[in-house]
Amino acid sequence: MTLFEDPEPAQPSGPVVRVRLLVAYLGAGFHGVQVQRGARTVAGELTTAAERVLQTPVHLTCAGRTDAGVHAWGQVFTFDVPAEVTEGTDVGDLARKLTRMLAPEIVVRASAVADDDFDARHSAKARRYRYTVLNRPLPDPFLAATAWWVSSPLDLRAMQLASDPLLGEHDFASFCRKPEQEGGSLVRTVLEAGWEDLGDGVLRFEIVATAFCQQMVRSIVGTLVEVGHGRKKAGEMLTILAAKDRHKAGPVAPPQGLCLWEVQY
Amino acid sequence: MTLFEDPEPAQPSGPVVRVRLLVAYLGAGFHGVQVQRGARTVAGELTTAAERVLQTPVHLTCAGRTDAGVHAWGQVFTFDVPAEVTEGTDVGDLARKLTRMLAPEIVVRASAVADDDFDARHSAKARRYRYTVLNRPLPDPFLAATAWWVSSPLDLRAMQLASDPLLGEHDFASFCRKPEQEGGSLVRTVLEAGWEDLGDGVLRFEIVATAFCQQMVRSIVGTLVEVGHGRKKAGEMLTILAAKDRHKAGPVAPPQGLCLWEVQY
Repeated sequence: MTLFEDPEPAQPSGPVVRVRLLVAYLGAGFHGVQVQRGARTVAGELTTAAERVLQTPVHLTCAGRTDAGVHAWGQVFTFDVPAEVTEGTDVGDLARKLTRMLAPEIVVRASAVADDDFDARHSAKARRYRYTVLNRPLPDPFLAATAWWVSSPLDLRAMQLASDPLLGEHDFASFCRKPEQEGGSLVRTVLEAGWEDLGDGVLRFEIVATAFCQQMVRSIVGTLVEVGHGRKKAGEMLTILAAKDRHKAGPVAPPQGLCLWEVQY
Repeated sequence: MTLFEDPEPAQPSGPVVRVRLLVAYLGAGFHGVQVQRGARTVAGELTTAAERVLQTPVHLTCAGRTDAGVHAWGQVFTFDVPAEVTEGTDVGDLARKLTRMLAPEIVVRASAVADDDFDARHSAKARRYRYTVLNRPLPDPFLAATAWWVSSPLDLRAMQLASDPLLGEHDFASFCRKPEQEGGSLVRTVLEAGWEDLGDGVLRFEIVATAFCQQMVRSIVGTLVEVGHGRKKAGEMLTILAAKDRHKAGPVAPPQGLCLWEVQY
């Protein structure tokens, strides 16, 4: 059994149509993406809206399980509905209907019929996350919802140097929450990792990996910011990775700087 | 008596020091900038914080009276304190102390001692406002707090043409809320007015005037968007101005797109 696997939800019997949604959301108002009893979540709101529009039960699968407060620009969901539900309707129009119910916090950017074997999570080849740091002496009210304000100056070159060892396949145990299930692998392959200076103190970290484990990007960013402050050396990243020990990494960066930017299939 | 004039607050007796603050804020959580009994306002929060830090009554004067929901990047406030309050302290450090209490919604970008004859409102030579329109078929959760989402395509060239007649001195009665006091002049001088396409559907209107009357920028933007939709012609702007009739203008654009960008002295 792989990590984080849900119990299989009851699927419609008979012929089904698989629907794919491309979704952006502001994380602040949600307890993460996944449906949870008694908590306001992105999938919870989306499920309620889709069930109201389609008049059939909906069980969403999502591509990237974003934590509470984390944003998405390109989250992907799939779900199945009985074929008769979509007969004579334009599935592409579902995006507009859902957005009308959920905007501005949640915007469904596109909706389409997917192949039967396409799955938002298992078909994903890679995920791209962006993390934004505001490195200025003073905070900015307009960036407070989408960036981590770090007041003392960061050495961006050191942070870039420290990002390079992340590339390739590693056991990311030092940068991930311990999986709830024993024996879950934390081996992941990072395809890209780098910082960009967007000017005016706005620093952006982009990381692409085949998959991520929980809190991985925020732990990495928290550690890289320690490097940027000179509290850790760039060369220590390899040692921290090799230690497979959560205590060797820096603190977890706050959620509002993180955004699931794109899922690649 | 000029428009909007406050009853003179009780000023400290004896030698005073005049303090000047440069302030940014996100308008969403406030009933505008000015102190109002029983309502959360920017000046109200700032007054409470300054009185706690300085341990003396504070009466703020502000440069631009932003309405509920309107933002500022470069709002300016002045107030007087008895000279002994600032003796031996660094007034420049007040910004940091106030920001620590009020961020992230309100950020005091700078604090300084001002000349005795400097007044945030009466010394201002011009104010620059920015209004942001998001012109895309779909809304964007990340711009919802700071832009007006307009879904159908706008003709930016027509909107620019319609902006040109605003330049110079005019009676802006067609674009302003009727003053509460009879006989208040609505003659204002516009020094700059123009649109910029920032790409990706983000359109920015900048307008500089010696002073503005209430709802002037939002009324102008609402009317220019009517022109952008072809519901009014660019050439009608002169007629609307000449009519001095609020009913000739378009609707008032929503507050979250507007930001007091800079006050010039």
